[in-house]
Amino acid sequence: MRDDRSVYTKRIDHLRRIAEIDHVLILNGTNIRYLTGFSGGEGALLITPDQVHLLVDGRYTTQASQETTDLKIIEFQNKADAISSLLHNEKVDFVGFEESFITLGEYQKLKDALSGVALKPMSVRLDWLRAVKDAAEITEIKNAIRIAENTLTDLKNLIKPGIRETEIAVELDYQMRRAGAERISFDTIVATGPNTALPHATPGNRRVEAGDFVLIDYGAVFNGYHSDQTRMFCVGTPSDRQQEVYQAVLDAHDRAIAAIREGVTCKEIDGIARSFLEEKGLGKYFSHGTGHGVGLEVHEAPTLSRAKDDKLQSGMVVTVEPGVYFPEVWGIRIEDMVLVGKDGCEMLTAMPNGLVEL
Amino acid sequence: MRDDRSVYTKRIDHLRRIAEIDHVLILNGTNIRYLTGFSGGEGALLITPDQVHLLVDGRYTTQASQETTDLKIIEFQNKADAISSLLHNEKVDFVGFEESFITLGEYQKLKDALSGVALKPMSVRLDWLRAVKDAAEITEIKNAIRIAENTLTDLKNLIKPGIRETEIAVELDYQMRRAGAERISFDTIVATGPNTALPHATPGNRRVEAGDFVLIDYGAVFNGYHSDQTRMFCVGTPSDRQQEVYQAVLDAHDRAIAAIREGVTCKEIDGIARSFLEEKGLGKYFSHGTGHGVGLEVHEAPTLSRAKDDKLQSGMVVTVEPGVYFPEVWGIRIEDMVLVGKDGCEMLTAMPNGLVEL
Repeated sequence: MRDDRSVYTKRIDHLRRIAEIDHVLILNGTNIRYLTGFSGGEGALLITPDQVHLLVDGRYTTQASQETTDLKIIEFQNKADAISSLLHNEKVDFVGFEESFITLGEYQKLKDALSGVALKPMSVRLDWLRAVKDAAEITEIKNAIRIAENTLTDLKNLIKPGIRETEIAVELDYQMRRAGAERISFDTIVATGPNTALPHATPGNRRVEAGDFVLIDYGAVFNGYHSDQTRMFCVGTPSDRQQEVYQAVLDAHDRAIAAIREGVTCKEIDGIARSFLEEKGLGKYFSHGTGHGVGLEVHEAPTLSRAKDDKLQSGMVVTVEPGVYFPEVWGIRIEDMVLVGKDGCEMLTAMPNGLVEL
Repeated sequence: MRDDRSVYTKRIDHLRRIAEIDHVLILNGTNIRYLTGFSGGEGALLITPDQVHLLVDGRYTTQASQETTDLKIIEFQNKADAISSLLHNEKVDFVGFEESFITLGEYQKLKDALSGVALKPMSVRLDWLRAVKDAAEITEIKNAIRIAENTLTDLKNLIKPGIRETEIAVELDYQMRRAGAERISFDTIVATGPNTALPHATPGNRRVEAGDFVLIDYGAVFNGYHSDQTRMFCVGTPSDRQQEVYQAVLDAHDRAIAAIREGVTCKEIDGIARSFLEEKGLGKYFSHGTGHGVGLEVHEAPTLSRAKDDKLQSGMVVTVEPGVYFPEVWGIRIEDMVLVGKDGCEMLTAMPNGLVEL
């Protein structure tokens, strides 16, 4: 990605065209990375009609100049003051900003510092621009997915009676990084036995026992792009009830995926998985949304949940991850990543998603 | 920590006493953890005169009930609506909140949902309450430090010509977790040769060469508490200039530490390190602050930088980390953690901080 500078110029020009505001201030580190390639995660980006200013503190000046081109790097002591001074030099009356990515405290500090330059919330949302991926981004996401799934495929024989949840998680994270992940996507979830009933379990000292379900929800990061998937194992033979519920979750998952295409709303997709599980009497055990976008962040737009009217667009990458959790007994989640297309979607995760008996 | 429930009751009672407001809403995940023990990282906490309500979504209900006592857990579909309904039941006119921990977008959504209940910024800052640690917290921090320093001590022989920065980082992170770290504190910095001139370097494919400086800035997390330290190695014998600058950074570091005690301002400590490096002609190469608080977050209050008038208090845990960076040549940083006391400070980091020749 870093070698193709023109992608950043294109993204900034696109933002300029649709922002309907001449001066735009971007404060979110991920959005700054998306627009410039600067991966420091802190700073400010001021886009004017004929210049792009990247403001960083002294820790990041060299890195910013190595990672970016075609923009002016400015070192600041105080971010709000530096922004103010630039805007006053430009003699502007107002500047567009992202209200979703500034705390109320920071906003008030910035407003005071800007003395006279008004802050105007932008209608354009960078997180929505980021939701639609280009070909290079999709390649990075696929690379991240390949690292994650190859690693788990190689490691699944570790899962046997006696090993602790933490030991599986530590080994998986280590091997993903040895395989080229720059970091893990999020704290890896390894839940065993009754802990599988916790949708956001933290790996603990529990040791795997014969008959356990084992749930692994994890991902890798490659060139800034994340993967996210969940796979289930059974140490021994699953009970009839476990097989039946697994099949119901898989069917809900498959039906949601079959419906994904450009133009469908997020809540329709969620509704397909949810109503199927409700028909099976499992609806009240499905305690979270059906999926979310994945890219420079592991959770980003869109959100596939029951309240979201947003429409899917071609090029979005989303997870589909219905789950059923019987508190303190066991739980099941199956999660894959797909790429939204005009007439359907492409499976990005390739690892088989059946229940693996070990 | 989790077994001693009374610590959370005490913290909430303390907040009630000093908040000067009957109803308080906490939205920051770390602050919620500090006040309740719930480690999910998402949710809302509403403290009323005679009840504590923890609002979580369906993914976290079981975890919340396992991790907390003496509070009422409420599952929500929509956080803002759930908060509104609780406050209307309590028939309150206004509720205190933290303006540093809500985005402007979330604030406006919440304000709309609260229809009639006013949001009043609190003068009490949880991040400042958190800055002063109790004995149990200091024990957890010491545990995190021990894991980190023992791991690097065992691994330093890995650092030899031919090994890549990423390989050192991956191995260090893995061994810290095998030694009991629940995660790493932040993305480990391993910088070699000219990359040591980047204060926030990302480990890359560069291989260690004879004569290189190697800078490692890293930490472990134990029971939620972080460590943070930086150590320097030289692969071979450092040049006279490298030794001289190392000694200057170490002297700046030692002078700052010698001045740390309750009542001294943050900017005084920063000024001591900075003016010493300025005297040595190195001031313009010291491009960041002198230190920061460490606890449930790796960067938290206080900030030891030139603009901060805040006074150190007994029980605060801070890093001291002056650095000198010659762009594209090499850089040096030395970082330790100390506990502020009435008449001085206690070194928490025990690993020797001299330049290690390998």
